[in-house]
Amino acid sequence: MKYGIAIFPSKKIQDEANSFRKRYDPHYALIPPHVTLKEPFELEEDQINDLIQELKEIAKHTSPFKLEIKKVSSFSPVTNTIYLKVEPVPELMKLNERLHSGNVLPQEQTYSFVPHITIAQKLSHDEYSDVFGSLKMQEFNFEQTVDRFQLMYQLENGAWTVHETFTFGQE
Amino acid sequence: MKYGIAIFPSKKIQDEANSFRKRYDPHYALIPPHVTLKEPFELEEDQINDLIQELKEIAKHTSPFKLEIKKVSSFSPVTNTIYLKVEPVPELMKLNERLHSGNVLPQEQTYSFVPHITIAQKLSHDEYSDVFGSLKMQEFNFEQTVDRFQLMYQLENGAWTVHETFTFGQE
Repeated sequence: MKYGIAIFPSKKIQDEANSFRKRYDPHYALIPPHVTLKEPFELEEDQINDLIQELKEIAKHTSPFKLEIKKVSSFSPVTNTIYLKVEPVPELMKLNERLHSGNVLPQEQTYSFVPHITIAQKLSHDEYSDVFGSLKMQEFNFEQTVDRFQLMYQLENGAWTVHETFTFGQE
Repeated sequence: MKYGIAIFPSKKIQDEANSFRKRYDPHYALIPPHVTLKEPFELEEDQINDLIQELKEIAKHTSPFKLEIKKVSSFSPVTNTIYLKVEPVPELMKLNERLHSGNVLPQEQTYSFVPHITIAQKLSHDEYSDVFGSLKMQEFNFEQTVDRFQLMYQLENGAWTVHETFTFGQE
């Protein structure tokens, strides 16, 4: 089974992200707007209980942190993905690190962690220039407290279903 | 905010349901296949913590139960919704009842509870007859254990995001 770990921001931020994703993100229908904490990974289903124990332990030792969005950025020239930049506060960066340690959680991390909420991807070059050109000058001003992350699994159609929520500082 | 409570069945059942939903259910992209335990309800955001306490209490007193699917059925002539019929085992029916009691959870229930996973809705009359005609003779044979339900909230685009998972028999 393919699993992934993400934070779903507040409804307000999700609604804002969706106003762009609707037009510019082909993954719009597969998952609500999110911050990926760990890239999708394969795991045998009989390991799921061990995985959940590790995630509970990690959540227990994580404190709620502030999620702040001030601007839009892009992964160009690597890809033309446009995203709401999430400020890399220490507790969020530490959470990402913890999710790449342990016995069951795969430890490889292909890219360095740049916390973000994707709002556009797989655009043509011209479309990318238009959209990013108009968004990069805009100011955004979102702030919320994050106190949980979610373990999801992927269906055959590419969509994601939440398996379990892990709340910070709890058993 | 609009909230809803549902069970997401196993990946296997979700994949099966999606093979129909993809063509026959306009809600396909808004939420993965699910058993609705409680119809969407409005709640002020400052009541969410009380709601979660009630749901934890209900989950704690619910035992895991068997979810069994043997056939397809339909709400015709009320609506032409087609669904995978979920056997109404006592623990599931009791869970639905409990979700309509308490102080925060709205108690009204418009329809009597018929546990189901929708696979087709809002079809034209002819389409409905075709699809239901070919599915109603088919045997289905799915069985799994359910040990959790999910509290979701609805975004402006109609899609649902999971807020929290409640596992049976746990604090």
